[in-house]
Amino acid sequence: MTTATSNQSVPDRLAALREFMRAKAIDACIVPTGDPHMSEYTSDHYKTREFITGFTGSAGTAVITMDDAGLWTDSRYFLQAADQLEGSGITLYKQGLPDTIKIPAYLLQKLPPGSAICVDGRLVSSAWADKLRKDTSARSFDWRTDLDAVGEIWADRPAAEFNPVLEYPIQYAGVPRTEKVSLIREDMNQIGAKTLILSQLSDIAWLTNLRGSDVMCNPVFFAFVILTKESVKLYADAGAFAPELKAVLDGDGMTLLPYASFYEDLKSIDGPVLLDRETCSELILRSLPQDIKVINDYSPVMKRKAVKNPVEMEGIHSAHLKDGVAMCKFLYWLKTNAAKAAEKQSGMGITEISAAEKLHAFRAQQELFMGDSFEAIVGYGPHAAIVHYSATPESDAGLQPHGMVLIDSGGQYLDGTTDITRTIVLGPLHEREKTLFTAVLRGHINLARARFPEGLSGANLDYLAHEPLWQMGLDYRHGTGHGVGHYLNVHEDPNRFYWGGRDTIPPFEIGMLTSDEPGYYEDGAFGIRHESLLLCVAAEETDYGKFLEFEEVTLVPFDLDGIDAAQMQPDEIDYLNAYHERVYSQIAPYLNEEERAWLRSATASI
Amino acid sequence: MTTATSNQSVPDRLAALREFMRAKAIDACIVPTGDPHMSEYTSDHYKTREFITGFTGSAGTAVITMDDAGLWTDSRYFLQAADQLEGSGITLYKQGLPDTIKIPAYLLQKLPPGSAICVDGRLVSSAWADKLRKDTSARSFDWRTDLDAVGEIWADRPAAEFNPVLEYPIQYAGVPRTEKVSLIREDMNQIGAKTLILSQLSDIAWLTNLRGSDVMCNPVFFAFVILTKESVKLYADAGAFAPELKAVLDGDGMTLLPYASFYEDLKSIDGPVLLDRETCSELILRSLPQDIKVINDYSPVMKRKAVKNPVEMEGIHSAHLKDGVAMCKFLYWLKTNAAKAAEKQSGMGITEISAAEKLHAFRAQQELFMGDSFEAIVGYGPHAAIVHYSATPESDAGLQPHGMVLIDSGGQYLDGTTDITRTIVLGPLHEREKTLFTAVLRGHINLARARFPEGLSGANLDYLAHEPLWQMGLDYRHGTGHGVGHYLNVHEDPNRFYWGGRDTIPPFEIGMLTSDEPGYYEDGAFGIRHESLLLCVAAEETDYGKFLEFEEVTLVPFDLDGIDAAQMQPDEIDYLNAYHERVYSQIAPYLNEEERAWLRSATASI
Repeated sequence: MTTATSNQSVPDRLAALREFMRAKAIDACIVPTGDPHMSEYTSDHYKTREFITGFTGSAGTAVITMDDAGLWTDSRYFLQAADQLEGSGITLYKQGLPDTIKIPAYLLQKLPPGSAICVDGRLVSSAWADKLRKDTSARSFDWRTDLDAVGEIWADRPAAEFNPVLEYPIQYAGVPRTEKVSLIREDMNQIGAKTLILSQLSDIAWLTNLRGSDVMCNPVFFAFVILTKESVKLYADAGAFAPELKAVLDGDGMTLLPYASFYEDLKSIDGPVLLDRETCSELILRSLPQDIKVINDYSPVMKRKAVKNPVEMEGIHSAHLKDGVAMCKFLYWLKTNAAKAAEKQSGMGITEISAAEKLHAFRAQQELFMGDSFEAIVGYGPHAAIVHYSATPESDAGLQPHGMVLIDSGGQYLDGTTDITRTIVLGPLHEREKTLFTAVLRGHINLARARFPEGLSGANLDYLAHEPLWQMGLDYRHGTGHGVGHYLNVHEDPNRFYWGGRDTIPPFEIGMLTSDEPGYYEDGAFGIRHESLLLCVAAEETDYGKFLEFEEVTLVPFDLDGIDAAQMQPDEIDYLNAYHERVYSQIAPYLNEEERAWLRSATASI
Repeated sequence: MTTATSNQSVPDRLAALREFMRAKAIDACIVPTGDPHMSEYTSDHYKTREFITGFTGSAGTAVITMDDAGLWTDSRYFLQAADQLEGSGITLYKQGLPDTIKIPAYLLQKLPPGSAICVDGRLVSSAWADKLRKDTSARSFDWRTDLDAVGEIWADRPAAEFNPVLEYPIQYAGVPRTEKVSLIREDMNQIGAKTLILSQLSDIAWLTNLRGSDVMCNPVFFAFVILTKESVKLYADAGAFAPELKAVLDGDGMTLLPYASFYEDLKSIDGPVLLDRETCSELILRSLPQDIKVINDYSPVMKRKAVKNPVEMEGIHSAHLKDGVAMCKFLYWLKTNAAKAAEKQSGMGITEISAAEKLHAFRAQQELFMGDSFEAIVGYGPHAAIVHYSATPESDAGLQPHGMVLIDSGGQYLDGTTDITRTIVLGPLHEREKTLFTAVLRGHINLARARFPEGLSGANLDYLAHEPLWQMGLDYRHGTGHGVGHYLNVHEDPNRFYWGGRDTIPPFEIGMLTSDEPGYYEDGAFGIRHESLLLCVAAEETDYGKFLEFEEVTLVPFDLDGIDAAQMQPDEIDYLNAYHERVYSQIAPYLNEEERAWLRSATASI
């Protein structure tokens, strides 16, 4: 069989794939982006879409027929994809534009009834596959979901990485794995499930109190879990576990089994089985016993994981204190350099990438720092208006002592995960920039100072963050906030701030950690986002119920140079002043004299 | 057969019912409150529960077995029911208290398996009956839903009233009935329904552009509709229609059929049939052909009725102008009398009931006034803390020149329905009363000034109305707002302000009319509510979508004597001042000189 390597051209790689397709009588291959765990980041082994198209973006789906090929990706990647696809013979389809044909319509157009379409069933969710089948039901296609077609012809494919798996110490996890398993078994009992299948890596890491490093920025390890009343089967790479850890897990009733034997073992599980079709792969569903009863619902692990325990809450405070110190040291450095450059009427000698490196270095000085929680976004000037901007050596802008730089970053600490955005003013702003800086901050503050009885969800509160912009007919085109894991993934469901999630977002509970990040983006001009993490805490109990509120656990000032206090309401100013006072009193002890003096003025009452 | 009359004692009436039950081998009778249309108010003919228990309250369910009897009602009626049930042999069960046994549990406790239980299937919704059957499924009871047992023994039962039905002129309705029918047929087509059943009287009045007076305060008439692609069958009392109107309806494709033949005709309808099991009676469901496909969903009429057309919107403005004039004249009279009484150190010579009569008289002077839209609530002092207070000759309090009186009232005008609450300060207030008056007003204002893109519902916005109270750990125990009909019912679904209605409230549309009525109630002390109607209108269209906002169509000042401006935010004060300026400029032309001078100061900027 013909194979291809990364050194060969994309047309050569496509030729090899088509030869394989011909041999297997496959008419079309769909190559999605993803891994068998629906992870946010794709590790090298699973970059089949990148291999077959040459397009390196983090999102996109390729479709290859015997005589045609297309790549669908979203607006973040239109330029990059057009560039990288040049000469490949692959057509770029721009998702989200009204005239772009969608994949189901493309398949219906290109393929006669009965055509065989192949998609690696490990890499797509069962819900996704179902929808695609439904949307193409006009033709009776022959779906082949048991083949990794690109993998078959990829000669120099990197092996799947199984890095060491480590115990997540109980002083950070707070609750022993055995107790977590008991709680989940109670949930299963309540739901009427005999078996629970977990494939999301953050669920598995939380349940087992283990951590790894198999996915970029996410301290997780490749594994599956099959949980019943009698057993916890952990399918992972045996070589990644030290013998002592294996013994501990064994003592805690967790049986380590080969990662590869998971799908085979699915064939003999007992029902009813509880799984989430949005996160479980098509291959998982296809591997179940034929008549098994499937309960399609959120994973109870996801729900419990979202509600941090007291030890985790202590860790959240500790991690955010350290992260605040690193951020404040960085901001002092950045603002001081901007001032110096302004004086000298020169550039700052700092670029987007070098700023991110400097910030990383400040974080790395902190205790228990393990790495970044995601790839930092440092966007200067118009770059900040690109919501998912990621500086490349080509785009890397030099900072100047004017305008604003948006810095969205976070750290992984053993005692918690952080995620913070500050928009830093490097020099004089236009009136409009100040107005919008202030409007976004007002939204951030009004959400942060919400107070409400038990029962409300992020759908009930999201208006607060949008309101100042909506009053001007403006908005931002992303959600207001996402759940955050505990030394785990920086994006974790189910708690969110999003008005449209009326029937999917659960009510707030004490211990939920959620980002509050409204923004405003003016194409080609500037971008603003103000993000802190909010910990849901008890406010008071009265005749009217138990009231909840948020603690803004992020401890970093908002840049006063961007604020027009005259456009703020007194309640908002009071909140900001109190927050800044708290930042100063908590962070100042960890700064040197110059930094402390700067922080004093950066947190002055307005 | 033994019968009974209203002149006989309740025990005699119960004895007659039990004799009937014995003859029919019935072990228990459930007697609910309601009519075959799930109307908010029960007309005399349908007051079977009142007849069999002697309890006259507007809500409650009786259960009568051969040797026991109980009445379940809510906290509004605990005192009244205890009083009226005395000596009847009927036990009062206080709904909502933790120790009160619920009806299903009561039935399970009292009745052996296989017992026959009778409930008039016309008077309970299909959803209600289903739930009761489910909750008692532990015993296999024999349900008899085709019997009006109390009716069978009620000798002097008033006949059902079928008052004249009148054309609702097109200059107020805006859209011809034929066009409405076409639109609903389009909806049915989309849903895949061949037949639509309507039993809610407001739906029928809207669809047919007819009005009546069969239900108190609701300008509706008793009727059912069976709508198909080919026909509109209107089941109503032929005697209530003038021959000319019959001819017009006939010309518009509406066939008038006897009210009583509706259930029989249901037996031969074609499916799929669309109906709402929350509002359609159990007997309707029982009358359908056995294997018919039922689509259980909101009535498309209800949805379209909620979105007022341009002519209706014009009427809303006109009706609220007149209602504002009546209210302002009334308030001038009330405030002037309070001032005089304070001067004389006397009572005001006005009671809750006489104030309501005076207000009615002012409304009656207005053009196109047809009657009150509900029974006015005038609650002075501690009475205002009783949310559903209705003054009786015994409770009727005399107003004094101190404290506050809460006045919740509304009018039916041919060009619209109004609903307004103002809390009027009659003399000096305590600090706490002012704080709460102001907090409730701030909530009202913040909801009224909301501005948002299409897609949001009242679940997304309700936080705004609660916020000032929630910040103090306080609240009100009712929804923030309900939809309002157009010269129709003052309470109409589906638009509402309620945070808990995340999955049932549809998004706002231009033309929806909703009340904004936060409150605060301190038992035994005082009650505050500030209510206006908000019309959803277009704000602007930008790159970020179509923005909506509310127009506060009610035109009556909030009592400045209750407001502590120091506790308000500048945005709120700006809104209030602008609103008051609008009230003055619109209402003043219709007032006499003294009234106008008063309104000038009552709407002065703060």
